[in-house]
Amino acid sequence: MLNLLTPERVMESFGLASAGKVYSLGAPVGRDGPVHASRNTSWHLVNSINNDSSPGSGGADDVLVTQCHASTHIDGLAHIWHGRQLFNGHSADYVTPEGAQRCGVENIGWIISRGVMLDIPKLKGLERLPGRHAVTPDELDEAAFSQGVDILPGDVVLVRTGWYKTFAMGEADMGGDYPGVSRTVCRWLYDHDILILGADNVAVEIYPPEAESLGILPVHKTQLRDLGGYLVEFLNLEELAKENVYEFLFIAAPLRITGGIGIP
Amino acid sequence: MLNLLTPERVMESFGLASAGKVYSLGAPVGRDGPVHASRNTSWHLVNSINNDSSPGSGGADDVLVTQCHASTHIDGLAHIWHGRQLFNGHSADYVTPEGAQRCGVENIGWIISRGVMLDIPKLKGLERLPGRHAVTPDELDEAAFSQGVDILPGDVVLVRTGWYKTFAMGEADMGGDYPGVSRTVCRWLYDHDILILGADNVAVEIYPPEAESLGILPVHKTQLRDLGGYLVEFLNLEELAKENVYEFLFIAAPLRITGGIGIP
Amino acid sequence: MLNLLTPERVMESFGLASAGKVYSLGAPVGRDGPVHASRNTSWHLVNSINNDSSPGSGGADDVLVTQCHASTHIDGLAHIWHGRQLFNGHSADYVTPEGAQRCGVENIGWIISRGVMLDIPKLKGLERLPGRHAVTPDELDEAAFSQGVDILPGDVVLVRTGWYKTFAMGEADMGGDYPGVSRTVCRWLYDHDILILGADNVAVEIYPPEAESLGILPVHKTQLRDLGGYLVEFLNLEELAKENVYEFLFIAAPLRITGGIGIP
Amino acid sequence: MLNLLTPERVMESFGLASAGKVYSLGAPVGRDGPVHASRNTSWHLVNSINNDSSPGSGGADDVLVTQCHASTHIDGLAHIWHGRQLFNGHSADYVTPEGAQRCGVENIGWIISRGVMLDIPKLKGLERLPGRHAVTPDELDEAAFSQGVDILPGDVVLVRTGWYKTFAMGEADMGGDYPGVSRTVCRWLYDHDILILGADNVAVEIYPPEAESLGILPVHKTQLRDLGGYLVEFLNLEELAKENVYEFLFIAAPLRITGGIGIP
Repeated sequence: MLNLLTPERVMESFGLASAGKVYSLGAPVGRDGPVHASRNTSWHLVNSINNDSSPGSGGADDVLVTQCHASTHIDGLAHIWHGRQLFNGHSADYVTPEGAQRCGVENIGWIISRGVMLDIPKLKGLERLPGRHAVTPDELDEAAFSQGVDILPGDVVLVRTGWYKTFAMGEADMGGDYPGVSRTVCRWLYDHDILILGADNVAVEIYPPEAESLGILPVHKTQLRDLGGYLVEFLNLEELAKENVYEFLFIAAPLRITGGIGIP
Repeated sequence: MLNLLTPERVMESFGLASAGKVYSLGAPVGRDGPVHASRNTSWHLVNSINNDSSPGSGGADDVLVTQCHASTHIDGLAHIWHGRQLFNGHSADYVTPEGAQRCGVENIGWIISRGVMLDIPKLKGLERLPGRHAVTPDELDEAAFSQGVDILPGDVVLVRTGWYKTFAMGEADMGGDYPGVSRTVCRWLYDHDILILGADNVAVEIYPPEAESLGILPVHKTQLRDLGGYLVEFLNLEELAKENVYEFLFIAAPLRITGGIGIP
Repeated sequence: MLNLLTPERVMESFGLASAGKVYSLGAPVGRDGPVHASRNTSWHLVNSINNDSSPGSGGADDVLVTQCHASTHIDGLAHIWHGRQLFNGHSADYVTPEGAQRCGVENIGWIISRGVMLDIPKLKGLERLPGRHAVTPDELDEAAFSQGVDILPGDVVLVRTGWYKTFAMGEADMGGDYPGVSRTVCRWLYDHDILILGADNVAVEIYPPEAESLGILPVHKTQLRDLGGYLVEFLNLEELAKENVYEFLFIAAPLRITGGIGIP
Repeated sequence: MLNLLTPERVMESFGLASAGKVYSLGAPVGRDGPVHASRNTSWHLVNSINNDSSPGSGGADDVLVTQCHASTHIDGLAHIWHGRQLFNGHSADYVTPEGAQRCGVENIGWIISRGVMLDIPKLKGLERLPGRHAVTPDELDEAAFSQGVDILPGDVVLVRTGWYKTFAMGEADMGGDYPGVSRTVCRWLYDHDILILGADNVAVEIYPPEAESLGILPVHKTQLRDLGGYLVEFLNLEELAKENVYEFLFIAAPLRITGGIGIP
């Protein structure tokens, strides 16, 4: 997929930068970031505060212990499978305790593309969506229309549910329900050639899914496994929302974790 | 310092992107990245490979345990002090086991600027600099001249010593000697308004320092503590060198580690 | 101190085992153990569940990430200093980011001794002591008397405050107040030749201390630094209390962490 | 199995302590311990060296990051399965990323029993066994006979191969071959009612196994899965060997890791 990010596309995307204002969509990393209750809170440790021989001089060092899918992160292609297959027909057996031997995140590279943010609670006149709300393709289209933005092939589409603060403050109930995109959005993604879908919630898609028969995380399965796209979770879209910024140059610089499954 | 990255500067920097080709300067993260022998090798663990109730479906999760100053990283302002002071006169007491209460890396934000790479071994006709070589201001100027690039205020300057592979293959001797910039480069940085200095070695500056009387890491002390600038270490400049790319749009998207001292 | 554990003493201690019943005083290790809110919750991760080539066969591996002073643990001699000195006059400078170069826990070895448990809330007719209760030498003597046990030189003395469950259930307030032994107990320890003092609370001693002028953790300073003894914290004494077991063979088998400061 | 450790057995075992000398069989924990090259070296970090308000006073704290099967450790029952079953017919599905929901090491408790060490290289007149040597039941019997010890039901049997130092010094080749007990020892264990088998090597049993058709780790499968016994690996038996100590009181105090698979 990311092969679509040709030099021409990259140059085109840079053209979108019109104001020079930078919005950081990543959550704080450490004890404070949003994290699903089933995962561990990250550790940030200062492992060394030392003083050298000249009095008053010294230095410090630190350590990060984190689950790659805690706080703001990209889900890599090896995060999910069905029919025992990853994207591109690779066997799920390639995901071993030593890491993903295929579809590892070290292959992602920089993401530089046009970005669009769709603010669904704003469309609905709500502060945040209710817990069992599944965002439909129609709602995405309505939001784009009311915001005055088009969806173009290759866009990075970021969906706002209004739940960023709920997660960041640890107020999301561990068992669900969390609003997110409906299973029916997969077709919409395919039709619009959208390969990177992000949201301000824990799983992009509604959780638990709309119907039990869909199995666990149906949008993950389609987006990562069938389409070879990516999901970005726990994005902080609050500043974009407040300033009504809906179209922008989107840049992500993923850590090149060898065999990685997710990227903090 | 990063206050200099105004919207106007950002827009100006984007103008430098002329070819749309992206070079990733970060080393692999995990067991393979370069790391000084005094630090721990990073752990990348797959902590979950599970299968859900529908046969053939499943997912995986991973964990990263890393020192923030291992592999490619930015040194934050709290990394070094002298006279018991950090940059801007903050007391070194603000660096506590809970993190840097002042000068933490969460304040850095995106770095978007003009970048210049100065290839010193190329200037010297060497594959890599000798272990005790201290790169002087004159050598930086000569390299810039021979490469046909100017150094402009606010540039991100990346110095190549040719040692990236040496470190990445674990062939650098633990005790030193490593080539790097001379203490005399600090004045050059100040005169050129250079606030981000990077290199392909462990400490940017020569180690051990040129004279014992300089104390430990004299360039760190000046750059981080006195000038409020940053250092970027273990950069992979090999591809830039190979393709003679000396001037470019430089982008870094630092993890916002609360109270952080370094950034992987 | 532990030099007192001569073969004769060890043989004598074994003689105390009269019933053959084993009481495990250690708390669960992992997410569930008691931990002070200022420390991190331990991580226990299964980092590998794999299946080998013969169908139905496989194995699993796990990882522990823990602060050495979380859950039940021994405080080593390098845990505290005053006058810039550790026990035996060693400079506090020996405690470096690489570990304790003197007084590390690797020197502790097995502890095999007579143990005595003193149940203070039982003496007071309470379920647990109030938050600001400082246990005095008189109370220790009274508890020993009413329980019918003598305190002998070299004993491991374990003091029950009744707060084990409070900590284990995360109900202890982060800022204090926690009951524990008074500063005046130090003299009592010295007079009775008690070198290992344990309790079912976070710091053995009352926290915050009885008077601000005492500085932080005065019992720690005396016991670890002046007397060269040890403290054992977060002990689960509930079963001993329930069965009125007050005298016993005490055994601890400390992990030999090189340069360690505490032992899980 | 450990139900056999009745109070009577415990009391009987204490009777074996005749000299009061304590031998610590655990390896150092941290950077120095023996570890198989496929696992990560443990981290021991000092995460806090701080000074309180009264000058000269202060304290330190540390952190341990370790694989539970690195250095000296006990293999728990959930470490291995075949026929998709753990010991006692529990489904292997109980081993989840959250830990072992059945057969977790928190159930082990203290081990107090008679111990016997069998020194096979001594029997052979060697410093250490050759890499492909599979220790047979006959050799175990011969060693016991020549050492003048009986094997009694319920004993903890420790087999010396002479490879402790090889592993501790990182000189064992990653791919094998390592000497260890033969598959045929399983029957011998069963006949002698031996439920805890230890050795001074990485896997107790020879690796790779004697015949490929046996699958991976056949002794593990029998001992842990079929017999419900335990294995103890990387034991330091050097001091016992040097002093010809072959019969002793064996004590182990396992960390109670909830859902744990191995115990450091």
